[in-house]
Amino acid sequence: MKSHTHYLWFTTKQRQEIIDITEQVAEQVRESGVAEGLALVSAMHITASVFVNDHESGLWADILKWLETTIAPWDAKRYGHNETGEDNAAAHLRSLTIGHEVLVPITAGKLDLGPWQRVFYGEWDGQRKKQPAMVPTDPEHRLIIALSRLEPPAIERPGRHGNALASRDSEV
Amino acid sequence: MKSHTHYLWFTTKQRQEIIDITEQVAEQVRESGVAEGLALVSAMHITASVFVNDHESGLWADILKWLETTIAPWDAKRYGHNETGEDNAAAHLRSLTIGHEVLVPITAGKLDLGPWQRVFYGEWDGQRKKQPAMVPTDPEHRLIIALSRLEPPAIERPGRHGNALASRDSEV
Amino acid sequence: MKSHTHYLWFTTKQRQEIIDITEQVAEQVRESGVAEGLALVSAMHITASVFVNDHESGLWADILKWLETTIAPWDAKRYGHNETGEDNAAAHLRSLTIGHEVLVPITAGKLDLGPWQRVFYGEWDGQRKKQPAMVPTDPEHRLIIALSRLEPPAIERPGRHGNALASRDSEV
Repeated sequence: MKSHTHYLWFTTKQRQEIIDITEQVAEQVRESGVAEGLALVSAMHITASVFVNDHESGLWADILKWLETTIAPWDAKRYGHNETGEDNAAAHLRSLTIGHEVLVPITAGKLDLGPWQRVFYGEWDGQRKKQPAMVPTDPEHRLIIALSRLEPPAIERPGRHGNALASRDSEV
Repeated sequence: MKSHTHYLWFTTKQRQEIIDITEQVAEQVRESGVAEGLALVSAMHITASVFVNDHESGLWADILKWLETTIAPWDAKRYGHNETGEDNAAAHLRSLTIGHEVLVPITAGKLDLGPWQRVFYGEWDGQRKKQPAMVPTDPEHRLIIALSRLEPPAIERPGRHGNALASRDSEV
Repeated sequence: MKSHTHYLWFTTKQRQEIIDITEQVAEQVRESGVAEGLALVSAMHITASVFVNDHESGLWADILKWLETTIAPWDAKRYGHNETGEDNAAAHLRSLTIGHEVLVPITAGKLDLGPWQRVFYGEWDGQRKKQPAMVPTDPEHRLIIALSRLEPPAIERPGRHGNALASRDSEV
């Protein structure tokens, strides 16, 4: 296969939520069979983000607080967008600041991440059905994990496994 | 073809301007003939952005106001960069915040965007010739739309068209 | 070759430092032999950035000052993350704002950058060994430059070299 596209759907419990999705991305890498390539992980919503950072809950709280106090306060009445009937203009600006996608290299069949890097989905406008009870709604968040393979499928040859300090070229 | 590169040139009427370029990108996808792949849309200027968000004019006004009041006020005298004779330091910081490129997946020959996602060019330092009249100048803004195809060109087989909840692999 | 991956290690002298890495990236493009393709340049740390902008030292000083005064003040005590014993929460937020990776198109064997665009590594939490003397430590900063080639290796045909206003398709 040359390419592998998977749509991941999930729910959130809070309107602002950060979810570690590294394992779901890694699972798609395994299913695709890609050895050397790139994994594009992209949110399909304009009020959400995909980013790479740290699996530490204190930092997640810092991010949410920073988005509210420094980057884009929710304060619905300050935004022209909210005259359309929406109240989520701040969520759009948060998505613009952090970004909506990342591209993770795949090396030797695995996500090539640094020692502390994890992949996250950041929802800045979840729970759009606004149900008062905190129960999972129908899946409403969607992202695309599009993997691309960078060697031809017909001829499989083992790649050289150099150490981290060397270049590696996949042979064909 | 494996790759398709197109340079898109255009003008802006304002120094700060947000332009929906989704149709120009989609046109390049069609011209390239790519069925499964990736579209890199990248600004070639360091005072501009490419981003994915909402086609809503109230939000565009919010973005411009937010860039000025929260992210990087234009206030030329506060920046060391402007000692070079430029006055656009704030435009560089706006480009850094929102980013200068996006990578859009191509699935079944179309940009694979979520229901409200559109692709935009954000000019933060246009009209550099500083003509007082609001007339189009010579094309001054350039971005590269580099499309990559992820299956071999020699053998064309119809892809499976699964529903949104399934993975899709392009067969070769 | 279809893909080429290189791990670049380097040191910084300051805790906050901006380094022009365009030549190192260009060198990897040459070594890879890729004519048409994409260069992913990605930091492997969650407190660093990779970005495209201007080679102008006044702007670099502006960026560092802006990160401190506007985006994420270092002020260690304001962040929950720092209760873990770290003091670098602000560096995480700076990485989120500017981003940790860029994807540069490769056209006719060269990085396809605009007239003023350069590629930078931004370290927001360097010198982690906290040696008082400003001497290079063991290499501690790592990024991955993952290049992908977008035409098959077996058949090399010269690409058409159109002018900037035309599309170019690499022929196979």
